[in-house]
Amino acid sequence: MNIGVDIGGTGIKAGLVDDQMRIVRRAGIATRSSRSAEEVIASTGQMIQKLISDAGLSLSEVTPIGLGCPGTVDTATGNILFSNNLGWHNVPLVDLLKKQLGTDRILVDNDANCAALGEVAAGAAKGCSSCILLTLGTGVGGGIIIDKKIYAGFNHAGAELGHMVIVSGGELCTCGRRGCLESYASATALMRMGMEYAGKYPKSKLAEAAAKKAAAGSRLGGQDIFAAAAQGDEAASKAVSEYVFYLGEGITNLVNIFQPEKVLLGGGVSAAGEQLLEPLRRQVARDVFCKEVPLPEIAVATLGNDAGIIGAACLS
Amino acid sequence: MNIGVDIGGTGIKAGLVDDQMRIVRRAGIATRSSRSAEEVIASTGQMIQKLISDAGLSLSEVTPIGLGCPGTVDTATGNILFSNNLGWHNVPLVDLLKKQLGTDRILVDNDANCAALGEVAAGAAKGCSSCILLTLGTGVGGGIIIDKKIYAGFNHAGAELGHMVIVSGGELCTCGRRGCLESYASATALMRMGMEYAGKYPKSKLAEAAAKKAAAGSRLGGQDIFAAAAQGDEAASKAVSEYVFYLGEGITNLVNIFQPEKVLLGGGVSAAGEQLLEPLRRQVARDVFCKEVPLPEIAVATLGNDAGIIGAACLS
Repeated sequence: MNIGVDIGGTGIKAGLVDDQMRIVRRAGIATRSSRSAEEVIASTGQMIQKLISDAGLSLSEVTPIGLGCPGTVDTATGNILFSNNLGWHNVPLVDLLKKQLGTDRILVDNDANCAALGEVAAGAAKGCSSCILLTLGTGVGGGIIIDKKIYAGFNHAGAELGHMVIVSGGELCTCGRRGCLESYASATALMRMGMEYAGKYPKSKLAEAAAKKAAAGSRLGGQDIFAAAAQGDEAASKAVSEYVFYLGEGITNLVNIFQPEKVLLGGGVSAAGEQLLEPLRRQVARDVFCKEVPLPEIAVATLGNDAGIIGAACLS
Repeated sequence: MNIGVDIGGTGIKAGLVDDQMRIVRRAGIATRSSRSAEEVIASTGQMIQKLISDAGLSLSEVTPIGLGCPGTVDTATGNILFSNNLGWHNVPLVDLLKKQLGTDRILVDNDANCAALGEVAAGAAKGCSSCILLTLGTGVGGGIIIDKKIYAGFNHAGAELGHMVIVSGGELCTCGRRGCLESYASATALMRMGMEYAGKYPKSKLAEAAAKKAAAGSRLGGQDIFAAAAQGDEAASKAVSEYVFYLGEGITNLVNIFQPEKVLLGGGVSAAGEQLLEPLRRQVARDVFCKEVPLPEIAVATLGNDAGIIGAACLS
């Protein structure tokens, strides 16, 4: 049994994970990141203590405790160097929890890295030695598994797969560069493409869906775009094709670089499933540099939000 | 003592490499790749036998023998699946040499991978655990070292760093895609940019150099372009800036992905040294995603043509 904790900007979720990588007991709190880091961490520690006592276990039975945290993590010291989502700068996360819980056996890694490790331990890449995870959400996150371990470079700041420029001089990215994969393959980018094609095709189902959403005070989402494309709507199909092409450019790059056993897609957009995977697989097979060898499988991640908890529980 | 062999389209070079990673004896033959693969391999075997006997050593004292070979290598079987440079398809390189030399201890890997391993063993990345090597020649080759070992993916076809699209829809690459790093950061691309700016600035030193070369039946080379830029020629400076920008886009991508201890540049263009490195370092420091951590050092590879021999001798 190990405890895995997934710290997010909105909520903090913990799970007691057994040897078969199943979450057998759960706990969760709201982050309320307007609080100080110390307060957030103290609440997290209390949640962990309650999870252990509710399970009738002792601390030594559930360690090491693993934490997944967004941002740049110094895994050696357990400090969070910077987390935009949490508003943290140089926060000694692991030290504070060690003191509170009274154990030295606490580990931390970046949340996307933990999610990739979780998928290899118990998800869509179970049993794989190497795997690349791309999460297609507000941004594009990445995790790299090599030899069944997280790879993030000598300073542990690597695996920023969303910040690979694929369109030099293209769309402005949140990181300040132009043309990053994130600015073409995030859910945000898909919504931008959807709105562009809705504007170009005012009589389309896509434009109709956008108008409905706007009337309800909401915005066109990735699901609306994929749904209209599935119904044969030309505008939506063009938006999906454009999105898939750029995502495919990024995935082909990653295949040429890593040739991992599997490429997994997570995050909201991955819910499109085969509608996304089928054209992607065709594009990658056509464009990949080396055609003499079997290619990585491209699939959807299966653990969803549990990947981070399970991966954190696997840290060692 | 181990023997390392670097098999190329023009020549095949071998070296006896001592425990300090010095090449203490050398041998070489012309490839004459119009010959059959069997003939080329038989000549290679004879060269290796002569190298051993000239050194007064026995076979068991110089094994494992390591081979670096261009193309897609099946390291498990020792077969060369495809090598464009050699014109080889499914050639059982290691099996043929094992029979000829009478030893089971022969290993093979891709030549660029061997060069990266050589630089980590004895060159500019000596002592590093992780390193990325980009060779800027006719094409752009790549080698990835992680945990002091070659990384090339589950099918050993990865590390094709030159075939990362950075300008989607841009210049046509030899691989069939548009906008690969190779089509913007190879020596070939630098020459293309040089000729473009020589055309735009007909009174420049660059145009003058191009005319001289053409009169001599030759072509403007990377060195001519860097030399004219060093003299303050505007046309050449613009060509160099354009080249460095795209190379920097690729290197920034690789830093965001790998955060290796070092990024090394090899191949002909790397001879420009600080003229190339200084603006690259500035650009990467400005553009990299994570600014809270120390960055990889960017440097020129130091072993030159010996990297492949030394790296091959380090295969295990």
